[in-house]
Amino acid sequence: MKKPTLLLCAVTLLCNLSLLKVSATEYTNQEVVSNLQHNALKSDLAYKIAESLTVEVGPRLAGSHENALAVDWAEAKLKSLGFDKVYREPVTVPVWQRGEASAAVIAPYPQKLIITALGGSVATPTQGLQATVIRFNDLQSLIAAEPSLVAGKIVFIDQKTERHKNGSGYGKSVGGRANGAVEAARKGAVAVLIRSIGTDHDRMAHTGLMHYQDGVPKIPAAALTNPDATQLDAMLTRGHEVTLALKMTPKDLGTTTTYNVIGEVTGSSKPKEIVLLGAHLDSWDEGTGAIDDAAGVAIVTAAAKLIGDQPKRPARTVRVVLFAAEEIGLIGGKAYAAQHQAEMNDHYIAAESDFGAGRIYRADVKVNSAALSAVQQQLSVLAAQGVTNGDNQARGGSEVSLLPAYGVPVASLRQDGEDYFDYHHTPNDTLDKIEPAALAQNVAVYASFAYQMAQSILPLRPLTSGSK
Amino acid sequence: MKKPTLLLCAVTLLCNLSLLKVSATEYTNQEVVSNLQHNALKSDLAYKIAESLTVEVGPRLAGSHENALAVDWAEAKLKSLGFDKVYREPVTVPVWQRGEASAAVIAPYPQKLIITALGGSVATPTQGLQATVIRFNDLQSLIAAEPSLVAGKIVFIDQKTERHKNGSGYGKSVGGRANGAVEAARKGAVAVLIRSIGTDHDRMAHTGLMHYQDGVPKIPAAALTNPDATQLDAMLTRGHEVTLALKMTPKDLGTTTTYNVIGEVTGSSKPKEIVLLGAHLDSWDEGTGAIDDAAGVAIVTAAAKLIGDQPKRPARTVRVVLFAAEEIGLIGGKAYAAQHQAEMNDHYIAAESDFGAGRIYRADVKVNSAALSAVQQQLSVLAAQGVTNGDNQARGGSEVSLLPAYGVPVASLRQDGEDYFDYHHTPNDTLDKIEPAALAQNVAVYASFAYQMAQSILPLRPLTSGSK
Repeated sequence: MKKPTLLLCAVTLLCNLSLLKVSATEYTNQEVVSNLQHNALKSDLAYKIAESLTVEVGPRLAGSHENALAVDWAEAKLKSLGFDKVYREPVTVPVWQRGEASAAVIAPYPQKLIITALGGSVATPTQGLQATVIRFNDLQSLIAAEPSLVAGKIVFIDQKTERHKNGSGYGKSVGGRANGAVEAARKGAVAVLIRSIGTDHDRMAHTGLMHYQDGVPKIPAAALTNPDATQLDAMLTRGHEVTLALKMTPKDLGTTTTYNVIGEVTGSSKPKEIVLLGAHLDSWDEGTGAIDDAAGVAIVTAAAKLIGDQPKRPARTVRVVLFAAEEIGLIGGKAYAAQHQAEMNDHYIAAESDFGAGRIYRADVKVNSAALSAVQQQLSVLAAQGVTNGDNQARGGSEVSLLPAYGVPVASLRQDGEDYFDYHHTPNDTLDKIEPAALAQNVAVYASFAYQMAQSILPLRPLTSGSK
Repeated sequence: MKKPTLLLCAVTLLCNLSLLKVSATEYTNQEVVSNLQHNALKSDLAYKIAESLTVEVGPRLAGSHENALAVDWAEAKLKSLGFDKVYREPVTVPVWQRGEASAAVIAPYPQKLIITALGGSVATPTQGLQATVIRFNDLQSLIAAEPSLVAGKIVFIDQKTERHKNGSGYGKSVGGRANGAVEAARKGAVAVLIRSIGTDHDRMAHTGLMHYQDGVPKIPAAALTNPDATQLDAMLTRGHEVTLALKMTPKDLGTTTTYNVIGEVTGSSKPKEIVLLGAHLDSWDEGTGAIDDAAGVAIVTAAAKLIGDQPKRPARTVRVVLFAAEEIGLIGGKAYAAQHQAEMNDHYIAAESDFGAGRIYRADVKVNSAALSAVQQQLSVLAAQGVTNGDNQARGGSEVSLLPAYGVPVASLRQDGEDYFDYHHTPNDTLDKIEPAALAQNVAVYASFAYQMAQSILPLRPLTSGSK
């Protein structure tokens, strides 16, 4: 962005594409990229980082004592790896404590059900509550329901999550988790239970963030495991009225300060321009947060470290941001955007790894549409890792998805998430779910992506409607 | 056994094998067997039985209130299916209640670990206990250890269970579960934790029976999930002393009476001679006991029902025995043997289904070795279901394994148990783990096996050393 001719080019969108192609290759150092990919694939650095975070810290819910340990861990880890600059930036977060959650069928077939509280849920009355169940296929059916049918009952939203490589089943079903409590409470329900937003058949309930709304009563919200949801459905299918007992003891403990932790490999010629690689440091509290998101922390940290280990730094700074409090509402990302607003124009491009450790198969971007083909030419170095170029509609993932609103170009390095929602937000999110070779492929892709972008002379802005 | 010539033949072992082969086919009715297999494969009866037991009763630990409901369920189910005789026989069982079990690393990396009490374990002191951990590769290493290294510590037996189609990994590792507490206590340990005897990578601890020994202190015994065992091992591998807190509240509540539930399809010409098909009605308390052993209950019940539905009854009685209290020490099987001792000579052959719902691939028997080839000829009707003949060293499975000591021939219809120990004795043992088509194949095999045996004129006794 510092060269007037290129700036003009970006602003006027009059760039000659063939010129861009030539320019794009000027800074490309095939030898460096090959070397980065080779080093990434033979290195166990990322796996060791993920292992260290999950074993030595483990679960690290935003705002918890364990999360504070994770911040210390992250700062120490980035320093020990020799990043040029390592620092933390404060983020104010609400503190929610899970407590216990239990459910049981009281009639007609008494037995326990396995549940977990949704993140942010209020508690039941101390002695618990009992009510009959009303089942809905999905959130939309609940919204359409006659309130008198719902009043006084426990709403059961029984939508299954579809399994797709790109994880698109999640978006289709997560509405019940996010908004089920509000919609159920509007109609007088006393609690809401959802079928876990997950593709597994394990007795593992999937937690995740839920919302309340001013003016609507706050009712307890929890997820049943998939087998328990099937069990409850089987009882209801018999035509009986089913009565449940529910007891949950989560607590809202006010707010506290946690931190985004940042490490930089300083650019050689354009140190103020930033290629941002993000991941999130916090996790839900039931697993050790291995695929969500120790994997991402490990991938972007190892990728930047490998770039820093090259004989010559790339032009731009590679900034690793380990965001706080992603799980409870992208809070670290919002804080970063606010704190770095003056610097937003210096963010050349940003990407975030927050979808486990499956292999990357496609690179989507969101850039000025005139630059797309040249950017894709630069990213063709990823083909050696099995990554094809995708579209110009990337969202960038998690916190980074907040940045296009500030004009920042983003990339989505799409991972195979076929089994991601088997483990997501459950106690089962543990280190054994990460395949070391796939993790290393991610590092190879992120390292070469970041290097190419840190060297590129392409103007990627402004984001145009064509890139939406 | 009623024909003098055949009895003589059996006793003297002078039978002409070619004569036996001719005799063996006399009663064989290929049309009936084909019909049974065809009906089994198109019927959802077994699946409906398994669904009914797991949904309407659910977990049914021997001696529990739920187990009493299961007995009522079984008697009603057999009656509703039109069995000729349905009755229950009392079995005295100890009553053990699981209570709660929690564990946490106190130092150096504080975090929770997921455990479950082993069946029969005593409780910790009310306030729990804390101690450092000493790890052993297996029970043998513990037995060989210097007592001073073990005294005052929590013993961690970290043996992995191998995955095999025939389930043979279980036997190799289960010793630590059964005898770990005794061996650890002999050396002064305060508790024992084992890596779950299971082939999965889920945060699901596998319970199962453990033993104490007179004269050796009773210490609490629990299983860690596989990922938690790996986590603990990773901490120990760092060379730190690891301190755990452990709290368990199981209770021994004396004894109670439960029941073996029996249903018979009365034989047409030799009604006092019995082909016994067994399964067990009790389950562990954390799953709904679908693969262990609602599947077996469903398979043998449906198989006998299909035989009873044929236009003509086979010669012998097919007796379905739904045993009590298998999980806590084959107690129902021992009671059956004691109560039916006078009738043992009338048990023509026995088999038990207690290894989930995987497809049957092999039929082993334990019969007089002179009869082996003729029996295998009779069982060649199973080939249509993909079942080959195996060896003459069958144990018969679970309770039925007690019967050869009384001279009773047995068969083992071997199921594919590749994934059985992923779910065995965990909360994950639920209906969704049963594949309906595989369950139906089991019914086809059991029905045709039982029919062939109920019609056979082969003398199968005495069991000879060659059949051991």
